[in-house]
Amino acid sequence: MALPLKIIPLINMQNESLLMMPGPVPMPERVRFAMARQAMNHRGAEFGQVVEETTTMLKEIFCTKNDLLTISGSGTAGMEAAISNFCQGKEIACLVNGKFGDRLYKVSQRYGNPVALTSDWGTPPLPPLEALERALEEGAEVVTLVHNETSAAILNPAEEVGRLAKKHGALFIMDGITSIGADEVYPDKWGGVDVAITGSQKCLAAPAGLAAISVSQKAWDAQCENPPFYFDLPAYKKSAAKNQTPFTPAVPLYLALREACAIALEEGMEARIARHRQMADAVRTAADVWGGLSLFAQPDALHSYSNTATAICYPEGITDADIRGKVKDLGIEVSGGQDHIKGKIFRIGSMGATGAPELLAVLAWCRVRSRQQDTPSRATESLPPARC
Amino acid sequence: MALPLKIIPLINMQNESLLMMPGPVPMPERVRFAMARQAMNHRGAEFGQVVEETTTMLKEIFCTKNDLLTISGSGTAGMEAAISNFCQGKEIACLVNGKFGDRLYKVSQRYGNPVALTSDWGTPPLPPLEALERALEEGAEVVTLVHNETSAAILNPAEEVGRLAKKHGALFIMDGITSIGADEVYPDKWGGVDVAITGSQKCLAAPAGLAAISVSQKAWDAQCENPPFYFDLPAYKKSAAKNQTPFTPAVPLYLALREACAIALEEGMEARIARHRQMADAVRTAADVWGGLSLFAQPDALHSYSNTATAICYPEGITDADIRGKVKDLGIEVSGGQDHIKGKIFRIGSMGATGAPELLAVLAWCRVRSRQQDTPSRATESLPPARC
Repeated sequence: MALPLKIIPLINMQNESLLMMPGPVPMPERVRFAMARQAMNHRGAEFGQVVEETTTMLKEIFCTKNDLLTISGSGTAGMEAAISNFCQGKEIACLVNGKFGDRLYKVSQRYGNPVALTSDWGTPPLPPLEALERALEEGAEVVTLVHNETSAAILNPAEEVGRLAKKHGALFIMDGITSIGADEVYPDKWGGVDVAITGSQKCLAAPAGLAAISVSQKAWDAQCENPPFYFDLPAYKKSAAKNQTPFTPAVPLYLALREACAIALEEGMEARIARHRQMADAVRTAADVWGGLSLFAQPDALHSYSNTATAICYPEGITDADIRGKVKDLGIEVSGGQDHIKGKIFRIGSMGATGAPELLAVLAWCRVRSRQQDTPSRATESLPPARC
Repeated sequence: MALPLKIIPLINMQNESLLMMPGPVPMPERVRFAMARQAMNHRGAEFGQVVEETTTMLKEIFCTKNDLLTISGSGTAGMEAAISNFCQGKEIACLVNGKFGDRLYKVSQRYGNPVALTSDWGTPPLPPLEALERALEEGAEVVTLVHNETSAAILNPAEEVGRLAKKHGALFIMDGITSIGADEVYPDKWGGVDVAITGSQKCLAAPAGLAAISVSQKAWDAQCENPPFYFDLPAYKKSAAKNQTPFTPAVPLYLALREACAIALEEGMEARIARHRQMADAVRTAADVWGGLSLFAQPDALHSYSNTATAICYPEGITDADIRGKVKDLGIEVSGGQDHIKGKIFRIGSMGATGAPELLAVLAWCRVRSRQQDTPSRATESLPPARC
């Protein structure tokens, strides 16, 4: 007999959905309530301490000794700060195998001369590194890469790409928006990540609205004239020396981010990374157990499955409404496919502060829904084959 | 006998200073706690409703039927969005009589050909409007003005400037960051404010981190190619039609701003403006009663004192440490002078949600401090003459 789904209490009674998406993600209570503090003077000592502590912790999370700057704006603001400060008028090789790789390419178009080295989203993975090497030999001065491409749920080979960029003296700009804080990222050890970017609402489980960006000396040496006023990174660097920001900061988001960083370091980065791997592995295993559902990403020796998001192909005849729609009615949100793969996949995020309870909830519901049709009594014995 | 200042309880016991500055300002509890909500999907219906309600209320507060867009970033981000979208390559006449007028000029330098029509901060006020008229006759296509220049605590003649701009077919970009929500601003009735900008942490008493910008059809008709990606206002307009934002929004700040706008409209804009006038008047009266302290701004027939901030000249021999430093020890923060008038004035903000209790607290303390020297027993009978 089918479970009486409609009368099971939701995750909570406040109409707050459980977000199991590749960001934004649920926030711990400490993070949320840090924002409720009364307004403070952002030129005063107390906020200075917030900036100092947050910066110190972010450097530890980024695993870098490079300068670490924060911008009141989304991850895209961080991308644009990187491109506009270090790539104007330059030849840029953009590796693109998903929506966010494409965004770095689009931002690059406004400032330099980018060439997109493109492959299909997720599968096949990036174009062969030989293509990148050729672009570098032909004069590319900058390489951009999205480390963890959530639109395809694939982890790209940042270390190898950075090594190639370094070998040819090019700058390497890495979008680590959905890897930093949940997966292994070593800008300094890898030797070649000149600019790394993250956003607050992803692996750190803070609210959206802040970008953090690390900048190497090699990047500073390539600083361009006249970036947008709001993204003038030398002004951020100058203010950071006084634990300030050049423009009015979004204070509550800093208070939240400080808590979120503290929570990450209390957990310990090694344990945090291990937890994320375990969670992503559980999602992949579940997809298999549900009847051999295909994963969208097709890693090879250079690539891995993402450890923060999993993209699962809908079986033939199953639509977004069947899975995402029904699961949402029960108080859980998972993501669909973006752009041209909309309706073909759904994506389960397992990043940030989520753990077993949240993961089990979403896996259980997806299991129920993927084996049911519209009415609870029409359970099917096995699922049709996946269509992608 | 001197009051035992040190043992009077502060505004609260949590080390949260009372901010009586020209922003940021104290936030009502409803605004602060709105931010503590769990993360939500910013592409979902609930956030769409937040955007819709906030936009509708902001239009009422801006007194405009123009498009109203919100950006996750500071007021400076709003300024840059305006300049980069509507002024690229154009001749821009920037009226400058304070720090923020100068900022609009600096942002304009990155995108067009600005000329600064400058006067000393606060006194004398703006250069004669004849100078602006000449610039317009000589081909200026855009005029920029800070309506309420808090660095000098003066209210500039936006209506008259807008009328001149319109007469010559020029765009008028108005920074209303410290007037909108607390003073009379009529972009449509005045007939010529093509772009008006405000920031969340000023007259609206929300947290810092959001800019709101109204855009007239005349401005859209002058839209430039290739603004910064993050400030691409046509993308914001397209998303706004779906009650979304083109890039990940700082969700908690929107939740806070919605409450702040609701509070403003519950008070009623007429009552709110009257309250601000009353408060600013009380500060000016107090300065006079303290022994004839000079106000920094010297309005003429075209200009008024600011109704949201008051700049008071220090008497000879009184320093920032004597007033701001000591008042701060007691839990109240007022602002000093900026740039070249640092140390010569102090500024009391009276904007947002503050009322009589907060105002009386700061006025009482300033009174005590301005009549004392370092030790409480050395009260003087009268203050020395002001030095500016």
